[in-house]
This record gives sequence, structure tokens and C-alpha cells, in this order.
Amino acid sequence: MEGAHPLIMKRLAEINFDKNIGYGHDHYCEMAREKIARACKAPDARVHFLVGGTQTNAIVIDSILRHNEGVVSPNTGHICTHEAGAIEACGHKVLPMDCKEGKISAQALAQYLKEATSEDYGMEHVVEPRMVYISNPTEYGTIYTLSELYEIRKVCNKYNQMLYIDGARLGYALTAPDNDVTLPDLARLCDAFYIGGTKVGALFGEAVVVLNKDIKMSKGSIKNRGALLAKGWLLGLQFDTLFTDDLYLKIAKNGVDQAMRIRKAIEAKGYPIYLDSTTNQQFVVFEDSKVAELAKYVGFNFIEKVGANHSVVRFATSWATTDEQVDELLSHL
Amino acid sequence: MEGAHPLIMKRLAEINFDKNIGYGHDHYCEMAREKIARACKAPDARVHFLVGGTQTNAIVIDSILRHNEGVVSPNTGHICTHEAGAIEACGHKVLPMDCKEGKISAQALAQYLKEATSEDYGMEHVVEPRMVYISNPTEYGTIYTLSELYEIRKVCNKYNQMLYIDGARLGYALTAPDNDVTLPDLARLCDAFYIGGTKVGALFGEAVVVLNKDIKMSKGSIKNRGALLAKGWLLGLQFDTLFTDDLYLKIAKNGVDQAMRIRKAIEAKGYPIYLDSTTNQQFVVFEDSKVAELAKYVGFNFIEKVGANHSVVRFATSWATTDEQVDELLSHL
Amino acid sequence: MEGAHPLIMKRLAEINFDKNIGYGHDHYCEMAREKIARACKAPDARVHFLVGGTQTNAIVIDSILRHNEGVVSPNTGHICTHEAGAIEACGHKVLPMDCKEGKISAQALAQYLKEATSEDYGMEHVVEPRMVYISNPTEYGTIYTLSELYEIRKVCNKYNQMLYIDGARLGYALTAPDNDVTLPDLARLCDAFYIGGTKVGALFGEAVVVLNKDIKMSKGSIKNRGALLAKGWLLGLQFDTLFTDDLYLKIAKNGVDQAMRIRKAIEAKGYPIYLDSTTNQQFVVFEDSKVAELAKYVGFNFIEKVGANHSVVRFATSWATTDEQVDELLSHL
Amino acid sequence: MEGAHPLIMKRLAEINFDKNIGYGHDHYCEMAREKIARACKAPDARVHFLVGGTQTNAIVIDSILRHNEGVVSPNTGHICTHEAGAIEACGHKVLPMDCKEGKISAQALAQYLKEATSEDYGMEHVVEPRMVYISNPTEYGTIYTLSELYEIRKVCNKYNQMLYIDGARLGYALTAPDNDVTLPDLARLCDAFYIGGTKVGALFGEAVVVLNKDIKMSKGSIKNRGALLAKGWLLGLQFDTLFTDDLYLKIAKNGVDQAMRIRKAIEAKGYPIYLDSTTNQQFVVFEDSKVAELAKYVGFNFIEKVGANHSVVRFATSWATTDEQVDELLSHL
Repeated sequence: MEGAHPLIMKRLAEINFDKNIGYGHDHYCEMAREKIARACKAPDARVHFLVGGTQTNAIVIDSILRHNEGVVSPNTGHICTHEAGAIEACGHKVLPMDCKEGKISAQALAQYLKEATSEDYGMEHVVEPRMVYISNPTEYGTIYTLSELYEIRKVCNKYNQMLYIDGARLGYALTAPDNDVTLPDLARLCDAFYIGGTKVGALFGEAVVVLNKDIKMSKGSIKNRGALLAKGWLLGLQFDTLFTDDLYLKIAKNGVDQAMRIRKAIEAKGYPIYLDSTTNQQFVVFEDSKVAELAKYVGFNFIEKVGANHSVVRFATSWATTDEQVDELLSHL
Repeated sequence: MEGAHPLIMKRLAEINFDKNIGYGHDHYCEMAREKIARACKAPDARVHFLVGGTQTNAIVIDSILRHNEGVVSPNTGHICTHEAGAIEACGHKVLPMDCKEGKISAQALAQYLKEATSEDYGMEHVVEPRMVYISNPTEYGTIYTLSELYEIRKVCNKYNQMLYIDGARLGYALTAPDNDVTLPDLARLCDAFYIGGTKVGALFGEAVVVLNKDIKMSKGSIKNRGALLAKGWLLGLQFDTLFTDDLYLKIAKNGVDQAMRIRKAIEAKGYPIYLDSTTNQQFVVFEDSKVAELAKYVGFNFIEKVGANHSVVRFATSWATTDEQVDELLSHL
Repeated sequence: MEGAHPLIMKRLAEINFDKNIGYGHDHYCEMAREKIARACKAPDARVHFLVGGTQTNAIVIDSILRHNEGVVSPNTGHICTHEAGAIEACGHKVLPMDCKEGKISAQALAQYLKEATSEDYGMEHVVEPRMVYISNPTEYGTIYTLSELYEIRKVCNKYNQMLYIDGARLGYALTAPDNDVTLPDLARLCDAFYIGGTKVGALFGEAVVVLNKDIKMSKGSIKNRGALLAKGWLLGLQFDTLFTDDLYLKIAKNGVDQAMRIRKAIEAKGYPIYLDSTTNQQFVVFEDSKVAELAKYVGFNFIEKVGANHSVVRFATSWATTDEQVDELLSHL
Repeated sequence: MEGAHPLIMKRLAEINFDKNIGYGHDHYCEMAREKIARACKAPDARVHFLVGGTQTNAIVIDSILRHNEGVVSPNTGHICTHEAGAIEACGHKVLPMDCKEGKISAQALAQYLKEATSEDYGMEHVVEPRMVYISNPTEYGTIYTLSELYEIRKVCNKYNQMLYIDGARLGYALTAPDNDVTLPDLARLCDAFYIGGTKVGALFGEAVVVLNKDIKMSKGSIKNRGALLAKGWLLGLQFDTLFTDDLYLKIAKNGVDQAMRIRKAIEAKGYPIYLDSTTNQQFVVFEDSKVAELAKYVGFNFIEKVGANHSVVRFATSWATTDEQVDELLSHL
């Protein structure tokens, strides 16, 4: 809901009248690419900068799949539910599978893929799974452990699937108190993933990290989808800033810390936590009367009714959330 | 599994050296169109002849939907499960809903559409339902009653949805013992539907009946999908034959009659009927040892395991099934 | 304009009540594949059977190209002019280049590709050529010599292009009096090509021969485009018949022989030949009064006006054209 | 090559920590929409904000066309040449027609459409033109007069075509010395057009003005193409600023004025003007030695060789070009 980190705004103002080469051929993009590759310990990674998350998912998935191939996704995954058919608009079926709190397990995935790729299963009449999509953190704020990702990778290898992670809120996973995953881990385990900027300090922008050389993503394929920003340096400069002195992780940590303050207070007051999120999204169950009262003072998402008199609401903090804002919220609980 | 009705084969042979105009401008197509429109009591119906069912579904749906619009389908619907992503390849999301024995109820549809079109529900982030797809008979051999279709139509009207019926096996629905639906009913209640030829007496071919003038289906849109048969008269002649002297319904009735003979024998022997089909597909539960034994003598589809020692198998009769073939099957039960 | 060769009609009638496995898994398809691979001296060739030419072009091209890649075509090529946007409907741009009598030269192609793939040329803003499409015979009845094809192949290699030949009327090229190209030559020089059945003796059907293992064409990708014929044996049986005892070439030769009779008579009478076709299509210039007179007796295509009082008309013979039919035409010249 | 007008940068900084509603539901978008509708004297116009020009063209065109319909464009039009197949990726064929200095005449358009829509012309085998795309100014800096646009509109009416104007550099047309077209004229004559922000004072952003109610463009169809900016207020605020106190036209005029200074100096020195542009792009012919010398001091685009020793180069000014920058250029001529 806010703009960008002040350092980004400052640099954008400073270079406003410089003349830069367009379409991502500028040196800010080059610097940002190098810093991201270094942060991922993946010198050969290709890094592309895009404007938004749905665009990013659609282009990456379209760069991997043939038309009769599909992408397996938790049924609460963003590509399943909230992208207005953007994946299908590129010609690809999303194959939803059951999940828990936004996550799939390696075991369930193995079972799903075993069936879906068995010789008997529909043959040429069904969509062949060819890649697996997960989000980290998930749409419910939960995160994957390193060991879980490792097991998922093994399943992907066994069934010849590419693994792609949607990192729209990646900073908030990497700085969660119980996280044990690093950018180099992601670079080692994924075929591609993206580092979300829009929700973590940038005005806009997502950095796709492509590890697998078979993925046909290029400036041309991005332009073909109308997604090549003319003033590409706006993206380069933002990611260069976010990946200088660990700014990305530092500011993400604020979002997580503020969310943990909310969670502790909620637990102390005895409100039920709806699901176990350690990132910047907290889902809490309140009586409906309390929801109505809170709505006067603070912004949140209504998620769904629970029984006759209760509801789940979502609080989302960010890199920009201040102590005062959280104090204000807590004073109304 | 068989070719075409002998009358079709005879006429194809007779006109083999005639010179016909291509691409469906011939007079067989014209005659077939007139006969079908008359059978539907829908003089203004537009009738298009296509080669196969998946092709037909993809083109009709693509003629109706914009990209961010979706088609609601029972989750066992053919477009959901066995078209290799053909609908998605045209850019459209299939929106699966729960169903029972292949059928959806008007009530469940109303509930689904109420949520999916409510103002709160995801807004621009979700795919908007714009049409409803059902099959009659369904993939499980069950059929809709006139009253059920009428209620579904009312729900479609309320939520501004087009209604499209996949009639790949339509003849076997229209001749089922408990059927009360006619072609004119379908023409009155649907925006479009198709009359399946491939499974009911033709070598190949499906006749799409388009009632709603807003559906942009044309020879051009068919050609654009690579589906305009050069020797279109092959389709026209087949449907002209099938719609002369009620041949279509007469031969479909044989498929149903033979299926009813199987069903009665099955019931007499005490084997459990898996679901209540009155059309040409019968789903029966056998012990696995019996399945193995039957497999030596007759062809059927294995569907799924039921418990530890039983399985569901599917018997499908057709217009071409003979008394002798059924006798042979029954002798092995 | 006619149906199929009598041998095909006879065999279709014979097997009409046999029970065959669907979707091209039958043994007729298997036999036809083997015979075609043998005729091409390409044992590893993959052979797919499709229903029509536009469908075939769209699926083959879509199996090769990524979205921001394009297919170079003579600007009179069928995919450029008469496929109702079927290639674009799959997301791909057709890149037209100038041609002469339907043909492109290796030299002109090299010049085109040199520019279109140069570093300066538009970079990510332009569509990258990735394959070359030609027809043999062309839409104007002209054919490529072996040496011309060999040079075109060399250019394709140099610029990393796949080469695909549309053989809708291939039989009439292979039997032209001045032809020196064979099926094994095509299999050696192309990445894929198709052998047209619809215009050469079949009721319908085209056999795609895929030589390059990188082309992702499969039953699944065909089904995904709605092009997998349920009763696939209808295609298998037709091509099995056409590739038994060289029937395909024998009957094609009749079309060419009859066209040559027409051409000789035309030349003898002094009518100007519009372009030098040695295949089943002949383009002749007549005075308009003559055109009007001929129209009373014979069928032909009006092509275009030439000057004030003359027009080009097209005569197309076929495998089914008889001596009597040609005699009749000649009697009116 | 520069960022945004200082007023935009100032306001972005001011609201950086405000909390805004996402996806274009904010009040900046609302205000900008109202101001643009008022500037167009089109109170019912729908206004959508997108990020870039290729994206905008692809989404507008896809909102208008069915798959077998095409868009007529001058063959130097941006959608023909420099959008990496983005229109085709949405399934639509671009139909190029000859043009002069980037412009098409009503007369040539009428001739083109007369042929392309005639009953004989290819029928269902060809792509039907359904809309006309032009740019103003064109890719060569030339502009259309009101009378020219009026005649083009009449032709579009006659042949049932929608008219769409690409205004990537629209400000520089509206402020050209010989311009007689206004925003209300465009709103009256077009079915849709867009007002380019990226090249005229914004960091990024294009405002689509949709006049024809039959055009199915919505937040949903934009999201479906991955083009709905999460922080939509960034677009709203920029266009609100540009359409306050005529800022858009004022700053565009600077670009034109500086270009006219360059043109006058060029003419005074006797260099040939390549084509008659009165907007911010000037195309000049220099000896190659002069080109090499200029390249040391100033940035420009090399366009093409003219004869053995001369070349065309392009100078592009902008809203940000200063007197000093032009003086510097002129000192080297």
C-alpha cells in the first residue's frame, strides 16, 4: 500500500535527468543482475526484471510449457485463484492439487505425479504435468523448510518436472524466525524463482532468476508479452538498491518483526490464531462484533466466516510498517 | 469402434466421383442443415459441421468467451478431464464444480454462480464465469430431465450465462427409456449444443446447433482453428443421411436397447450397478477375479478399484452392437 | 472435388464393422507409418496423421516455434494468405518474403535472414525467424529442384532455421516431368514435411513426417489442438492404401499427365501460358470472351484480369481426372 | 531517455508513505480519469491506465478482435514491426498495407478494404479486417490532419471497421505547428486511442481512452494479460499531474519547439531533410563522414544508408530537451 523505500526514491530523483539506454540495456540493470547473481551464489543465473507478479508468473510458465503441458499448483496458489486466467490466456492449464495452509508436501506431490504421469492415466487425452509451482511464503503466510524444498526437488527430478517458486513476498519468508532457506538454496533447488520487489520495498518490480538453461526466457519473449519496460533502468536501479548492503532482507525483517509483535499480542489476549504463519501475514479469528469495532480504526482483509459469530481476518505488515502503527492496532485489540 | 452406418457407406460410395464444391458450400450440407433445423423446430438455427468433439467444444467455447471469462463445468466433464488442455489452448479457464454421477443440479449451480459473481469475490483478479457446459448424456451415462434442464436455464438467465450442451452421445440420451427431452427442447433451452455423429452412426462428424445470435461462430472462425474440412460434403452427406427418416434416433435406440439388456442381466445376476445409467454406457462392480475372466472374452474399460477385491468396469454399446454380441457377453457373466 | 480412390473406398467398406482401437493406436496407422518411413528411407521418422492442411500447418509450426519466433514464408504461401489466421491463432507471426511464381531462392532467403537476424536489426523488438516454410509444388504449381532445396537447406543451417515443406499436393510435384526430388531427399533435407492425402486420392488426411527430434509433436499436442481423430484408423487405412504398391505416386502421375495434355493443347493453340507449371495446376491467359464461353462447359478458377480484355484462369486436374474430361475441355478451346 | 517531469517526481515523493488502495481503485486514478474525460469532452469515455505501449496495443486490439479477424496497419506501424509479435501472441494477424512516410490515406484504405472485404476475396480462407490501426504522430514523426482523420473515419464506417490510434507520442502531434487535431476530435473520431505518458513526461504509463461501448476492455481483461499494476495509483498520480493545468501539452510543446530549432538549423545549413516531420523526431541526410563526426558528440539513431556515401539519422527531442542540449548539437552541424 506504500510506495518505495526512501533510498530508492532518493536515487530515482537523483538520476531523473540522466540519459539512460532503454529496455534494460542500462548499467543499473547490469549491476542489479550481478548483485542478485552474487547473492544467489549463482554466477550463471540469468536475471530478468519485470513489472508485476501475475505478468511474471505468466511469462515464466509460458517460457517452460508447451500447450499440452500443465503446471501443478497448490489449489490455493495465486496462479490458481487470483490471476484472472493469465496462465490460461497463454494457453496452459493449471493443475490444482490439495494443499494444507497453502503448502504441498513432497509426499502428496509424488502421489499426484505418480498418478498423473502413469501410462494408464488418460494418455494423450490429459494435460501432462511438466512443472511444479509453489509460493514461498504461501498465500497464507506459511513457509517451506529447506528440507521440505529438498524433498520436493527430489520428486520433481523423479518425475521430470521443473520447479518454480513464486516469491512475491520472498523477503518475508527469508527473514521469518523459523526460516532456514537462503537465496543460494533457492538457486540450487529451483529451475527458476522470482524475488518480489513490489511488496518488499520497490515501487514495482520483480526479479526473475532463471537457473535452468532449457528455459527459453529472453528480452524477446518478454517484449512479446508486452512486458518489457521502456525505461528498464527504473527496475535496475530499484533492485540495485535493494541488493546493496542487504537492504532487501533488512527491510523485509521489519515486516516480519512487526507481524510477530502482532501475533504475540494476539496470543497473549487469547484470540485464536487461524493458522501458523511466521511471516508478514497473520490470520486471526475474532468475534464479529470485534471485527466491526476494529474496522473503525485499522485496515485488514476479511477472509471468511467461521461458525455463526466469528470471522477470520488478515493483518499484513510490510517493510514500511512502523512501531506506532502496530501500537495503534494493539491498543484496539 | 466401428465405422459408419451402412446407408452412409452406401451413399459415400455412390457420390465418390461426383464433383462437389468444397468447404461446406455443397448442397448436402445445405440439406443436412435444413433437416437438423427442422428436427429442432428452430428455423433460424445456424448449423455448423465439424470433425470431432474436442475440436467442437474448443471452437464453440472460444466463440463465446473473452479471455478473462471462463466456462463452468462439472468436474468430471470432458472439457475438464480428457481434452488435453484444448480449452486452455484457446486461452480460456475451465471452472470445475462438484457434481454427482456427472451431473450438476440447478441449485448447486446457482450457489456456485452466486459466489463466483458476487461483488466481493475476487473482483478483477478472478476469472468471470460466462457460460455453463454440461454433457447429455454425461460421461457416466446419466441424463438430464427436461425439468432439470429448465431449472438450469433459469439459473443461467439469472447469472447471465450461456448454456452449452456437449452431445457427443446425444442420441443415446434422447432414446433412453426415462428420457423426456427432445431436440426442440434443447434448441429452446440452450444457446448452443452439438449433435454427436462420431459415436452415433457417422464415420466422423459433429453438428453444432447455434441458437444465440451473439455467438460469433462462422466458417471463418472454424477455418481459423484449422477445423474446416476441405471436402465438407462428407459431413453434409453423413448428417443428411442421419436426419432422413429419423435414422439418428432409430440407430441410437439400438445402442440403448442393448445396454438395457446388459443392465437387466447384470441386475438379475446380482452384480451391483455402480451408478444409475439408462444410456449406452453401463458401469458395473465385479470381483477382480471376474474382471480377469471377462477380459478374456469381451472388451470393456477398467474404471477404478472399489475396496480391496472389486473394480468398476464400463460396458459401452453402440448403434452397431448386435444381439449376438450382447448374448456372448451375457454368457460370460 | 472428388472423394477417394476406389481402393480406399473398398477397404473402408470391408472393415466397416471391425472393432478398432481409437485415436491412432490401431494397426492400420502402424502399418502406414512403417510404409511411409520406408518410402522416405527414414526409419526413425515420426509420422503423424492429421485431417486437413491448415490444421497440419498450424500444429507443426506451433510445435516448433516459441511465441516471439516467426516463420518465414513466400508471400504467396498458403499460411500467408489462405489459412484465416490459423498460424497467428496459435500465437505466431508469419514473416512474408518476396517470391517468384510461388518460389523463393536460396539467395533471396539468405539475404532476408542475414538482415532479420543481424544484431542491429531490431533486437528484442522484432520477431525472430526460426523456421522456413515453403510449399512443393507451390500454390502456383511450380516445383523446387533438388539443387534448389539443397541450397535452401544450407541457408537454413547457416541461420539456424528449421525447414518445413507443405506438401498438400506433393504427389503432383514428385511426378512432374521435370522433377528430380524424391521422398528420401525430402526426409534428408527437411526438419518436417507433410504428404498431402486430401488432394491426392484420400477422402481426407495428411501425413506429417517429422525428422528433427527437437520438434515437440505428439499425440498430446495434436489432441490439444482438437485434431486427434477418434477413429484414427480411417487415416491409417487410407495412407496404408496409398503407400502400398506406390499407389500414391501412380495416381498422382495421372493428374500430372492430364495437366500436361492440357498444357500442350493450350500451347498448340497459341494461348499464352501465364507461368511455367509442370504439375496439376495450369494457369492460362484467355480473352475474356473466351473465358465466358468456356465457363459454360468446364469448371475452373478465375484468377485475375490481365490488361483490359484478358484474364488468367486456373485449370486443376487430379488423380481422378479422366481422358474424357480432358477431351471435353480441349474440344472447347 | 529521461525519467519523469519534476512535478511528478515531487508528488510521488510526497505520497510515498500514504496508504493507497491497489489495482487502480485509488482516488488518483479516479481524478485522472475525470480530467482526461473532460479534456476529451467525452464524459462517458472509459479510461484505463497501462504501463507500456506494446502492452497497450496488444490489450486494446485483443479487446476488439475475434481470432479470425485482423487489424489493418500501415506497414511501418509499430504493431507491424517492433512489438516482437505481441499482437500475434494474442492470436491476431496484423494486415499490413502500403503507406507513405508512415501515413495511410483514406483513399488507399478504402481500396484496401474494398478488396479485402469483397465477397470473392478468399471468403472464409482469409483474415477479415475488423479494425484499423494508425499512429499519430507516426513512427516517422508525420501527423494526420483533422480532415484526413475524418475521411479515414468515413471509410471505417463504410467497411464496419473500428478505428484505433496509437498515441505513444501523442503530445508531440497535438503541439506540432501545423496540427489542427484536438483530444475532443480524437474522442469523436476514434473507437479507442491512447495518450502516451512514457515518452511525454511520465516515468511510465499510457492512458487508453475507450469510446465505443462494444469494446470489452475491463480491469479483468487487463489483469488477464498480466498488465494490472498493483500500485495503480502510480499511474493515476502521473496522469493526474499531466492533465492538471495542461501540463501534458505544455511540456510536449517544448519537445516540438526544440525539434523545430534543429530543423531550421539543418535547413539553413542545406542538409537534406529526409521527410517532412513537424514533431519531435527529425530525419536528416548527412554524408557518412559527418555522421561519424557527430557521433562523437551527440546521440541519435542511425536509420539507413542512402546511396554510397550518405545516411539518414534520426534526432529525437523530448519534453526534457534543453536549449543548451540543442545548442550543443547545432554547434557540431
